[in-house]
Amino acid sequence: MPRWAFELEYDGTPYVGWQRQINGPSIQSVLEDAIARLEDTPIACTAAGRTDSGVHAAAQVVHVDLTRNLPPDRLRDAINYHLKPNPIAIIRAAPVPDDFNARFSAIGRAYRYRILNRPARPALLTDRVWHISRPLDAPAMHAAGQFLLGRHDFSSFRAAACQANSPLRTLDRLDICRTGDMIEIVAEARSFLHHQVRNMVGTLKSVGDGSWPPERLAQVLAARSRAASGQTAPACGLCLTGVRYPIDPFTPRKEPFF
Amino acid sequence: MPRWAFELEYDGTPYVGWQRQINGPSIQSVLEDAIARLEDTPIACTAAGRTDSGVHAAAQVVHVDLTRNLPPDRLRDAINYHLKPNPIAIIRAAPVPDDFNARFSAIGRAYRYRILNRPARPALLTDRVWHISRPLDAPAMHAAGQFLLGRHDFSSFRAAACQANSPLRTLDRLDICRTGDMIEIVAEARSFLHHQVRNMVGTLKSVGDGSWPPERLAQVLAARSRAASGQTAPACGLCLTGVRYPIDPFTPRKEPFF
Repeated sequence: MPRWAFELEYDGTPYVGWQRQINGPSIQSVLEDAIARLEDTPIACTAAGRTDSGVHAAAQVVHVDLTRNLPPDRLRDAINYHLKPNPIAIIRAAPVPDDFNARFSAIGRAYRYRILNRPARPALLTDRVWHISRPLDAPAMHAAGQFLLGRHDFSSFRAAACQANSPLRTLDRLDICRTGDMIEIVAEARSFLHHQVRNMVGTLKSVGDGSWPPERLAQVLAARSRAASGQTAPACGLCLTGVRYPIDPFTPRKEPFF
Repeated sequence: MPRWAFELEYDGTPYVGWQRQINGPSIQSVLEDAIARLEDTPIACTAAGRTDSGVHAAAQVVHVDLTRNLPPDRLRDAINYHLKPNPIAIIRAAPVPDDFNARFSAIGRAYRYRILNRPARPALLTDRVWHISRPLDAPAMHAAGQFLLGRHDFSSFRAAACQANSPLRTLDRLDICRTGDMIEIVAEARSFLHHQVRNMVGTLKSVGDGSWPPERLAQVLAARSRAASGQTAPACGLCLTGVRYPIDPFTPRKEPFF
């Protein structure tokens, strides 16, 4: 059974999230059903990040064991054919060693959160951004974010449903930057707690709108209580943009092509 | 009757185009109907660019005469309220002199065309890009584009249905640039012929995939015949990104907000 890694792009809007659930279509179920069209035996996919309902991915990574051994590009195209018309596509496919695990081999995850900060609601980016009409102070949000860098107990930003054994995480990057009406938040860590990014963004929003000073983030973190932090930012603004492994399983994307 | 200018963002996918038509909903009809909710008399909107069906706008400009005289932000919010749930939003509103005409006062129009150039179809940018699997040589496309700059007879890139009196246009900018899998084409001119941008992009595609050398663009232009150029690129990749006037009717967008 050769093991494969897939790099996956998807629009999370119409799904209950990555994970197969009984209450609606998940990215996992749609992908496994598409792969099942090529396989005789049932298969199971494991993802680097179990994204919530409405959360998008530009580069989710998934592994799966298949009996078929096609050239990577043909396998990608065949599965993409069966994925239609779902807004899910395999960008790259690569054979990987049997001990590669999309989830447990990952040493870094990157998320991007987008806030559209202007009076008018989005017309071109519906379901892709959190729309906030009230002006936000992005430099203050960035200053606040820096209090969270490093290894900490992130209980204040952890969902009640979080299944992780430990609330300790190491946040490597939390950059907040405005370009015109768009505020982009980039978060990087080896791994995140459930809702950690969305809870950090919701808390930074309280700094951005002037409710809290940036320094308050140090107290929020020290409180180790979800009650100390701000709201959970909506799922639609979040996108999993990359997963890092000790050895990149994929052939580098050519940039430029020629 | 005070005259107003609106900056408009819209997703062109569900519409027959800007212009009111009997065969389906247009951006003009939806906008005029929303404004009619505030007015007692019928009103008519004039746009800088009469975008085709499926073409988007990040910053279309429209003018209209209204009897009501609200503060600009309140007027914008009131019309946006009535535009819901359409993917159309007024970004900025400003009172303008009676001789301001969104179409005839414009001295510059900018369009952006996006090609997603990778094997996998788009999942996050469905209806926003032209997907081309075959690798395209963006630098060759850029070189080809430079043959079109300046004042020329653009009959080779003109739609049969074009209503302009003259095929003469002055192309000020045609830049083609790749970032990863995305090829972005930026075109600027005082005005364009019907389908001119899409026909230029379709022709550049024939250069990008190696069918034609860049120099061929000089012959295509000289032929002054639509038969000499390439295909019409699909509408979904095109977006009207800006309109220029001798005096900017809008209050500058603050960047950053603070």
